[in-house]
Amino acid sequence: MTEHFHASADVLGERTRNALLEAGASAETAEATTQALLYASEIGVDSHGVRLVVHYAAMLRSGRVKKNPMLKTSRTAPATAMVDADDGLGHYACYRAMELALEMAAQTGIGAVGVMRSSHCGAVGAYAVKAAEAGMIGIVTSNSDANVTLFNGTKAFHGTNPIAMAAPVSGQRPWLLDMATSSIPFNRVRLYRSLGLPLPPDVAADAEGNLTQDAMRAAMLLPLGGAGYGFKGAGLAGMITILSAVLTGAVIDPRLIQMTETRDFATPRNVGHFIIALEPARFVGREAFDGAMQDYLTLLRAVPSTRPGETVMAPGDREWKTAEQRKLTGIPVDPDTRQFLKL
Amino acid sequence: MTEHFHASADVLGERTRNALLEAGASAETAEATTQALLYASEIGVDSHGVRLVVHYAAMLRSGRVKKNPMLKTSRTAPATAMVDADDGLGHYACYRAMELALEMAAQTGIGAVGVMRSSHCGAVGAYAVKAAEAGMIGIVTSNSDANVTLFNGTKAFHGTNPIAMAAPVSGQRPWLLDMATSSIPFNRVRLYRSLGLPLPPDVAADAEGNLTQDAMRAAMLLPLGGAGYGFKGAGLAGMITILSAVLTGAVIDPRLIQMTETRDFATPRNVGHFIIALEPARFVGREAFDGAMQDYLTLLRAVPSTRPGETVMAPGDREWKTAEQRKLTGIPVDPDTRQFLKL
Repeated sequence: MTEHFHASADVLGERTRNALLEAGASAETAEATTQALLYASEIGVDSHGVRLVVHYAAMLRSGRVKKNPMLKTSRTAPATAMVDADDGLGHYACYRAMELALEMAAQTGIGAVGVMRSSHCGAVGAYAVKAAEAGMIGIVTSNSDANVTLFNGTKAFHGTNPIAMAAPVSGQRPWLLDMATSSIPFNRVRLYRSLGLPLPPDVAADAEGNLTQDAMRAAMLLPLGGAGYGFKGAGLAGMITILSAVLTGAVIDPRLIQMTETRDFATPRNVGHFIIALEPARFVGREAFDGAMQDYLTLLRAVPSTRPGETVMAPGDREWKTAEQRKLTGIPVDPDTRQFLKL
Repeated sequence: MTEHFHASADVLGERTRNALLEAGASAETAEATTQALLYASEIGVDSHGVRLVVHYAAMLRSGRVKKNPMLKTSRTAPATAMVDADDGLGHYACYRAMELALEMAAQTGIGAVGVMRSSHCGAVGAYAVKAAEAGMIGIVTSNSDANVTLFNGTKAFHGTNPIAMAAPVSGQRPWLLDMATSSIPFNRVRLYRSLGLPLPPDVAADAEGNLTQDAMRAAMLLPLGGAGYGFKGAGLAGMITILSAVLTGAVIDPRLIQMTETRDFATPRNVGHFIIALEPARFVGREAFDGAMQDYLTLLRAVPSTRPGETVMAPGDREWKTAEQRKLTGIPVDPDTRQFLKL
């Protein structure tokens, strides 16, 4: 995106926050959403970065999400809680849920929080990283609207259902996994359509569930593992639906109103999330954990890559490197978002 | 395996237990191991079924695993515990760890247990199912010796690191996911070698990390997602290593003594496991959970398959169906295992 306009995180944050406030968001909602969007933009996950402010502002105005949600949190047991997001934007609820999980984990060793009546929450890694920054392991999942087929299925059933885990690394940025359970996101299909290019093999199916590389005919995504091993990706997507939605009282993927492919932008969707925080000190102990994590990452990063002269990367390495670069260069902003943010 | 000899679960269980006792296993070890092996044999996961008794008996005799391990369990916080498996067989430790997790989850809503100084524990689903049978959600992971490459890596680094989740379904057998984070197990490579057949594409690499379908040249497995999206499978394998080994004080995958490809069958390996139990009643509530789970599975099982006349299956459906069949037909036993068990 080097051809794009670049903005500093400070300026971009201010404009994003203001755009959300102008759309009616409460201060808490605007702050949490801005923080989550900037997180994704800073580490290079532009699909979940500030460009989403255009969509969120529209949803605040159309009534799908509440402008001033009143989160209802309830501790259901010493190590568990529920957050009713009151049909607000998901970011505010997710940050609060992770705070709760961390509070409980400090007392009981692990804390688990279900979030219901929520909406899109951006990159789930944003909340997992909060745990790692507090010295804990964070795990976050979210369900989403159906656009991934089952194994040998003929209909889109699960969402791209992401899972993130972040683990603290002493003296370094966290180990950070944040992945959808499909091979590619549906936005990639739209991109290939606009470019007139064929899709990679084994990632999408037509409306009948047959494999296709024709971006125009692609109607749904295949689960991770593709035509051969997609029962694993579909199983993981199901695990995430059960934790995020079945367990929390949210709407399951195939019944969710589509995020964008719908005419209904006024009805709340009731998306669900599931959040765990784990205290390493309550397992092997802090010092031993830190040492083992260093050992693991040192060994991993020393493995030669199949690309000559390179070594392999751990999950998160690329993202934190991008964040360093973007501190210097600013964050690229696409033309539509730039116009919307009056940059 | 219709050409195989078949034995009833009762007879097979008795012979398996006796073989372990003859190899010196304590009554507790023999009982737990037999239960876990029979579980896998009953549901059709023969790779993790009774055939493993031959290996386990050898390990009891060679000194890698202790015949009469004294499990040391410690509650480290209200919702967390550690189990030191005392270098015994993994099954005994894993059943005990799941019992502990369930006890804690009944009190605190969620319980998490790390297991260290363990060994191979068979199919991790065996322990997850125990949670579902108690009305809870169970999640179980284990690390294992290196035979899966990293994304673009040139060395085997992670194990096939399985994850299992089981969720209770009112009036039915549990929803049950039990999967390795590689596309295929290494035993499949050995099978293709013996058959003289080429491997499927995108599942294995040669000793330099280059994709190969030549079973004779295959030196390691690719992570789930293959050459294109294997960063996801590798990330999941890493998540499982961190939870099962880094967090518990077990040995990380690339430092583990190989399970079979080694001359050292006398040194304990210190494999690690991680076990979570979750109480649905502490989230959306028991009744709502049961209803949502039914709704989810009814919708899923109604989706037409790409195979004419069929519908798709949920994780576990095939396994429970096999279990019903094998109640009638008995369990197939391969010739080597039959001879070992004197059947």
